[in-house]
Amino acid sequence: MKMEDLLSLKIEKPSERIYALSKEAWNRVAKPIDSLGLFEDLICRIAAVQGSVEVRIRQKALLIMCADNGVVREGVSQSGQEITEKVAALMGERKSSVGRLTAHYPMEIFTYDVGMVCDRTPKGVIDKKVCKGTEDFLKGPAMTKEQCLEAIQVGMEAVEMCKGKGIDLIATGEMGIGNTTTSTAVVCALCGVSPSECTGRGAGLTDAGLEKKIRVIEEGLSLHLGKKKGTKRSEAGEVFEALRSLGGADIAALCGVFIGGAKYRIPIVIDGLISAVAALVAERLVPGCRDYMIASHRGKEQAMALLLEELLLQPVILADMALGEGTGAVMLFPLLDMAHSLYAEGTSFQSASIEQYERLTQ
Amino acid sequence: MKMEDLLSLKIEKPSERIYALSKEAWNRVAKPIDSLGLFEDLICRIAAVQGSVEVRIRQKALLIMCADNGVVREGVSQSGQEITEKVAALMGERKSSVGRLTAHYPMEIFTYDVGMVCDRTPKGVIDKKVCKGTEDFLKGPAMTKEQCLEAIQVGMEAVEMCKGKGIDLIATGEMGIGNTTTSTAVVCALCGVSPSECTGRGAGLTDAGLEKKIRVIEEGLSLHLGKKKGTKRSEAGEVFEALRSLGGADIAALCGVFIGGAKYRIPIVIDGLISAVAALVAERLVPGCRDYMIASHRGKEQAMALLLEELLLQPVILADMALGEGTGAVMLFPLLDMAHSLYAEGTSFQSASIEQYERLTQ
Repeated sequence: MKMEDLLSLKIEKPSERIYALSKEAWNRVAKPIDSLGLFEDLICRIAAVQGSVEVRIRQKALLIMCADNGVVREGVSQSGQEITEKVAALMGERKSSVGRLTAHYPMEIFTYDVGMVCDRTPKGVIDKKVCKGTEDFLKGPAMTKEQCLEAIQVGMEAVEMCKGKGIDLIATGEMGIGNTTTSTAVVCALCGVSPSECTGRGAGLTDAGLEKKIRVIEEGLSLHLGKKKGTKRSEAGEVFEALRSLGGADIAALCGVFIGGAKYRIPIVIDGLISAVAALVAERLVPGCRDYMIASHRGKEQAMALLLEELLLQPVILADMALGEGTGAVMLFPLLDMAHSLYAEGTSFQSASIEQYERLTQ
Repeated sequence: MKMEDLLSLKIEKPSERIYALSKEAWNRVAKPIDSLGLFEDLICRIAAVQGSVEVRIRQKALLIMCADNGVVREGVSQSGQEITEKVAALMGERKSSVGRLTAHYPMEIFTYDVGMVCDRTPKGVIDKKVCKGTEDFLKGPAMTKEQCLEAIQVGMEAVEMCKGKGIDLIATGEMGIGNTTTSTAVVCALCGVSPSECTGRGAGLTDAGLEKKIRVIEEGLSLHLGKKKGTKRSEAGEVFEALRSLGGADIAALCGVFIGGAKYRIPIVIDGLISAVAALVAERLVPGCRDYMIASHRGKEQAMALLLEELLLQPVILADMALGEGTGAVMLFPLLDMAHSLYAEGTSFQSASIEQYERLTQ
């Protein structure tokens, strides 16, 4: 894929008419108006994306993007880079945390090696390497333009594959030691905030470790953004440069998943920090993608709240999670199942011979 | 049951040792420490209640308490009292909102008529009437002492019944036109707040309706609490008086469910406002019940946040719900299933040959 192809993508708006019809369907269910709260809006938004009041969310999948980050060499993580491969290998066998979390929940998991340092992609993981780990962003840009575009394409093609399989709803996940560092750097570049305001402890850094992480991100921002480091970047070219210089192949691939969601009209569920930053990059590169995104949870990492606000999306689960792998995103699935069950099979006021509630307030 | 029997109940603390062992079990799972956030605490608390690290949450039930409220005659609700019976009849057929929401989720629902005005309890609903609707609290106490104690006993016996059926986890729900009014009145009595600070729109009142509701609650507080209406009531006798004078049979029965949970060591999941106020009444009447309670969601009604703070419980779902019937409480179930699945079947650091994360921070 070429840069022009990416930036010339035009995203259609989800159907406002279908959204309104879907809300009317909710209002016919024998319950107080709006009483399922944010879940009513989520179902209506999915209807609008799918272009039908008859919402389908039976077939679900999780796309996990795994990659390594050169910046780990600066000592920003408690774990060594070998953990990325080990956990990805577990993912391939559905034995990693998200695999066990969903052991009794019907959904598919597709794990991608989009840039791990290991020579051989583990069994059960799809080999789509665009590099063997990125460069250390304190030494130069993390990725070349080609690598970054290629990673975005991997994500878009993953959604195309899901479309072919009849998947209705996709959750996003990732694995890559060091990726809260790369993600936070990209957040700073996109939102114009400073690392000290929004850097979290990732998988559990000490105070000293956290300070080092902040310093590394600050240096990275100075190196790649120079004087403009405190400003909000929204122009597509600049956003792309921030992504390839400071980000990782996992973020780029997830960004591709969000763009793919908009292109192929499949709602994509945001997980935690890494996934959310990929979502914001997608929206800045290809405006309109946001309408195809669904927030799931607000995790422990500080930058999450900021990202979801930028995207005007509201999470429904607040549980201080910080696991990654898509664990928060998949937890939204059974909640949507329940909401959908009421939406699709709820008793109507009419059949219950109850007078419909009137909307008296806004 | 006599008042003395109720107030002399002694609640054992859940096992701190089992809590700690359960947390150690979490720490052996190959994932960052504490990374499943509040869900780790919830599973540990259930373990401590059950007295075993091997948490069991397979068998689940919802207990719905239905009752009518005399105060409806003051015009505090958009709906007429006949709706309580109609919705309870749907509940008996599992066709009400919570029945349809959980249509594809394996759990039992037991609906109780603990004080509806109708002469005949609808089919599928358990007849445990303690009255045919309460008295209008602007005309006198809503319930006699005997009725109130009887309703509490209905709740406790419902939990005993669940215990006999091998139920591991119980959610609470209710139905009763006017019960956000009675609940808010009890909140004001227990927390020493004024109605204008914490009265919500229930199933959808207009501004004028809301003002009237506030005025009715204020009058009720003046009538039954007199000069002490702005103070926080925590003494058991006073709390009981507030419950019977201003509350409803549904609140009293749910209060009994929370007391039963502590007595029979079954965790009870709080739903929305009505359920949460019953929980606080239970804790004030029989201290220690709180340790057997689990918060699910924070609904739209303003007083919810206050009640959960009083109980030192944190909800994980924030979705502006205001449906009642136990809909928010049952939505916690599949989330707990997923957390439990990782807890019970997660890959250990040892079996994955990954070095266990160290706790470096608090």
